[in-house]
Amino acid sequence: MSGALDELIALMARLPGLGPRSARRAALALVQKRKVLLEPLAGAMAEVAASVRECLICGNVGTGEKCDICLDPKRDGRTICIVEDVADLWAMERAQVFKGRYHVLGGTLSALDGIGPEDLNLPRLAARVEQDGVEELILALGATVDGQTTAHYIADMLEGRGVRVTSLAQGVPVGGELDYLDDGTITAALNARRSV
Amino acid sequence: MSGALDELIALMARLPGLGPRSARRAALALVQKRKVLLEPLAGAMAEVAASVRECLICGNVGTGEKCDICLDPKRDGRTICIVEDVADLWAMERAQVFKGRYHVLGGTLSALDGIGPEDLNLPRLAARVEQDGVEELILALGATVDGQTTAHYIADMLEGRGVRVTSLAQGVPVGGELDYLDDGTITAALNARRSV
Ligand SMILES: [Zn+2]
Ligand SMILES: [Zn+2]
Repeated sequence: MSGALDELIALMARLPGLGPRSARRAALALVQKRKVLLEPLAGAMAEVAASVRECLICGNVGTGEKCDICLDPKRDGRTICIVEDVADLWAMERAQVFKGRYHVLGGTLSALDGIGPEDLNLPRLAARVEQDGVEELILALGATVDGQTTAHYIADMLEGRGVRVTSLAQGVPVGGELDYLDDGTITAALNARRSV
Repeated sequence: MSGALDELIALMARLPGLGPRSARRAALALVQKRKVLLEPLAGAMAEVAASVRECLICGNVGTGEKCDICLDPKRDGRTICIVEDVADLWAMERAQVFKGRYHVLGGTLSALDGIGPEDLNLPRLAARVEQDGVEELILALGATVDGQTTAHYIADMLEGRGVRVTSLAQGVPVGGELDYLDDGTITAALNARRSV
């Protein structure tokens, strides 16, 4: 086996959801489908590396300093939905029910993993609430211990700032991750949101 | 979401073992680990596209007209192991028990899928047996209907050519794929091979 192929397999195995065996299968598929898969994928990766960046406002991914959602005048900046990561933002968008903007934390607080407020996109959230006339923060965090710890931290942090803090309620299963839920569940959870 | 990222996700979802959700997760991981994952992976793909090709003798992947195994003088060219695909060849090599060379069919005969002898790397096999003084062909094909049909086709094709045709026996589970087996199972199957 060539060194380049070994290297490709080792890198593929570092992608989430791919173990050593599926990384080998994927690399072989790339070699065997050079024109229709390998070359377009190499090109798409180079393009993404050159063009995709993190939104300075919300932490979403996009192609400029501000993402499409932060730039869209039809999105309501007075309502901000807090998500753990960009995959959760995409899950919310697929449900097509939320018309506000987002704030991507980049994780949740975790005593076990040593993740504190300064490790998350929290300082920018405080500044945003202060400056942008935010009226409601919707916490769309998982119903895990860490997710709920993070929700309470945010509610405490913003107490007395005149912003309503709600959270997705009905339909988010205990221990469930947002990105696994179907659109209907997310819609129900959003419509039944409650004050924290 | 940017067009380049959509394109990347669509291409990732075409890799074996990755569904739409894991393709999104993988693409996000690439964006978030640009320096340590995305850029090296794009580079490895370009390198593989430029350097990796199919061995003209056996169908293995390598960097020249002949693969490392076909070029290695320590490998015994009188014994050839027939495998369905390169992943199976790799599984045999990981077991470190076979010292001969290989022939990669690129699939199995399948009436259902309309795959006939001319769709596989079979004509080259006949020529190889004729020219290279092959004494034993070891069929390392799956214990599936199509795998066994292919085994019998090869045994019939080479009848009267003075080559011994054996097949992996003990240890290959019914309906099992070689690439899923552990090294010990492969070793046992090879050592207990029988004439077809
Ligand atoms: Zn944004
Ligand atoms: Zn070869």
